Amino acid sequence: MATEIQTPIRFGIIGAADIARKLSRAITLAPNAVLSAVASRSLEKATQFAKANNFPPEAKVYGSYEALLDDPDIDAVYLPLPTALHVKWAVVVAQKKKHLLMEKPVALNAGEFDVIVKACEENGVQFMDGTMWVHHPRTAKMREFIADPERFGQLRTMHSCFSFAGDADFLKNDIRVKPDLDGLGSLGDAGWYGIRAILWANDYELPKTVVATPGPVLNEAGVILSCGGSLNWDDGRVATFSCSFLANLTMEITAAGTNGTLHVYDFIIPFKEKECSYIANTKCFFNDLVTGWEPLPSEHIVTTDLPQEVCMVREFSCLVGNIKNGSKPEQKWPIISRKTQLILDAVKTSIETGFAPVDIKW
Amino acid sequence: MATEIQTPIRFGIIGAADIARKLSRAITLAPNAVLSAVASRSLEKATQFAKANNFPPEAKVYGSYEALLDDPDIDAVYLPLPTALHVKWAVVVAQKKKHLLMEKPVALNAGEFDVIVKACEENGVQFMDGTMWVHHPRTAKMREFIADPERFGQLRTMHSCFSFAGDADFLKNDIRVKPDLDGLGSLGDAGWYGIRAILWANDYELPKTVVATPGPVLNEAGVILSCGGSLNWDDGRVATFSCSFLANLTMEITAAGTNGTLHVYDFIIPFKEKECSYIANTKCFFNDLVTGWEPLPSEHIVTTDLPQEVCMVREFSCLVGNIKNGSKPEQKWPIISRKTQLILDAVKTSIETGFAPVDIKW
Repeated sequence: MATEIQTPIRFGIIGAADIARKLSRAITLAPNAVLSAVASRSLEKATQFAKANNFPPEAKVYGSYEALLDDPDIDAVYLPLPTALHVKWAVVVAQKKKHLLMEKPVALNAGEFDVIVKACEENGVQFMDGTMWVHHPRTAKMREFIADPERFGQLRTMHSCFSFAGDADFLKNDIRVKPDLDGLGSLGDAGWYGIRAILWANDYELPKTVVATPGPVLNEAGVILSCGGSLNWDDGRVATFSCSFLANLTMEITAAGTNGTLHVYDFIIPFKEKECSYIANTKCFFNDLVTGWEPLPSEHIVTTDLPQEVCMVREFSCLVGNIKNGSKPEQKWPIISRKTQLILDAVKTSIETGFAPVDIKW
Repeated sequence: MATEIQTPIRFGIIGAADIARKLSRAITLAPNAVLSAVASRSLEKATQFAKANNFPPEAKVYGSYEALLDDPDIDAVYLPLPTALHVKWAVVVAQKKKHLLMEKPVALNAGEFDVIVKACEENGVQFMDGTMWVHHPRTAKMREFIADPERFGQLRTMHSCFSFAGDADFLKNDIRVKPDLDGLGSLGDAGWYGIRAILWANDYELPKTVVATPGPVLNEAGVILSCGGSLNWDDGRVATFSCSFLANLTMEITAAGTNGTLHVYDFIIPFKEKECSYIANTKCFFNDLVTGWEPLPSEHIVTTDLPQEVCMVREFSCLVGNIKNGSKPEQKWPIISRKTQLILDAVKTSIETGFAPVDIKW
């Protein structure tokens, strides 16, 4: 992160989606970012959004995305549009030399995402996807734990799941169940997080093979409502995930290494904003008579003044500030996004090919 | 359970294995059971075992299994022998009209187990396997939760894992890594529990299909050291499990229903003997800005005066007492054992056939 004090990065938001409310607040709270504009296809909607989300009085409202992108006083764009629109608008954002913070899944497939990355590279702009939890200070603490050869050792097996129960309206009308808007359904939405968690725990080492779990549920339009998969590496590491719009809110990571185990129950959205925890144990075993554990797992509490999405905006804005000061864009973020998308693609392919294993190639 | 006060059931233990120490204590603590004898192939070992495990002075020690089985003052036998010896000795136990409490896995395969069940049926003796956790009062509370259509709804997805890190001596010498003793390895040992948990959560409804997860680890003799699998039902329910001798102690159930979620971190051996908990949430969702959960999951504490293995011995002894009073053996226990074994067999078959799906037929 840049250490010097910088001029706040000026954000424009394209699309007045519900999820943009949270990011608007995050930009407001971030010490190095400012809300400069919002665009909707309806000027009235943009105006209402700006008013409802505490935009500063000098912020601009636009009735078209193009108008916002032509504004020279915007440094960066937050793009929460439906996935099917990502490639089109992300490329324009990059061509207009705006840095790009984009919601997940980043694209409908890795090929589309490569078009976005190419546009960002050619125009020297930063790309980052909107996976907030990886920016939480808890995630850094959990990383310290699983990277510790003594406390955790080598990862052997892990599982991640994220489900929430969409109501009747969601399952009928939400963009995430529409093949022409978010065609990856729960795999692209909920599954993105579990897959990212697996890659995160493996220090972003791609697996050798991915196979979908039999029994996915699709809606009438063929959009995935629930599915799962397993990833495996040559050294015997195995990870599984499940994702669903059809089961009560559940989100967890369990990662077992040779020496230690990490559990976290609320990895994507912590139960509470300013204080959360994870559970860790190292070299636990049973007592002599196998009637209890020694030692007991311990809960580790992490507090943060800045919500995770603010940490994300701060990190992104630092990178943008660095670029303004002559640095090159940070490549790790688009690389991590692409790896996540590759696994999503493989799960989808595996489902489409009767649960055949899919080799992962970068 | 029988409600009338009964004469304590007289237990004989065949094999002075380490695990038999725990059951000896349980029989001592159970209100309706008494330690009557122990047999080892070495009389000295049997004598030492009886002394070290607080057998009553009148208890007998035998230098052969046959001698114990010929003792008319023994009602029931606890059989902790290696799996490969189960069918041989279980049949003799039944033929000698002793009721049978046997360690898991119950057999090397369901065909062998059917021989045991047939012998028990022909001789009118009770069969129960030694899966202790299902007898814990916490398990009954968790059952109430997942059976509640309002609080939990219909099960949609679940995961269970059990791993522990065998040390170098374990991985070289333990009976559970020897093909001629416990040929099912970690699948038969650790996997038994995760598979049982899945069946338990599905009210013992067998899945339609089972498939092993790619990436099992086998030792040089071909014994499974770690593996996993997925089970699926026609209605879209999916469950996954993993089991391992190669990762730090980890044991969990996460079960997500349409309305609720159950988490438990220590389902097989609770962290502490007399007080344990599970975590449940019902109709959790995010707050308006998706920065926290509402309501929060809650921890439910269950206390017990009797450790779970004592509850198991008490239940088994009640059933034996009922039979002494004219009842028939309780069929549910061998049925549950057989279902568990069927899934184990299917996972093994799937591994052996390149991860092909295996249809489950009773």
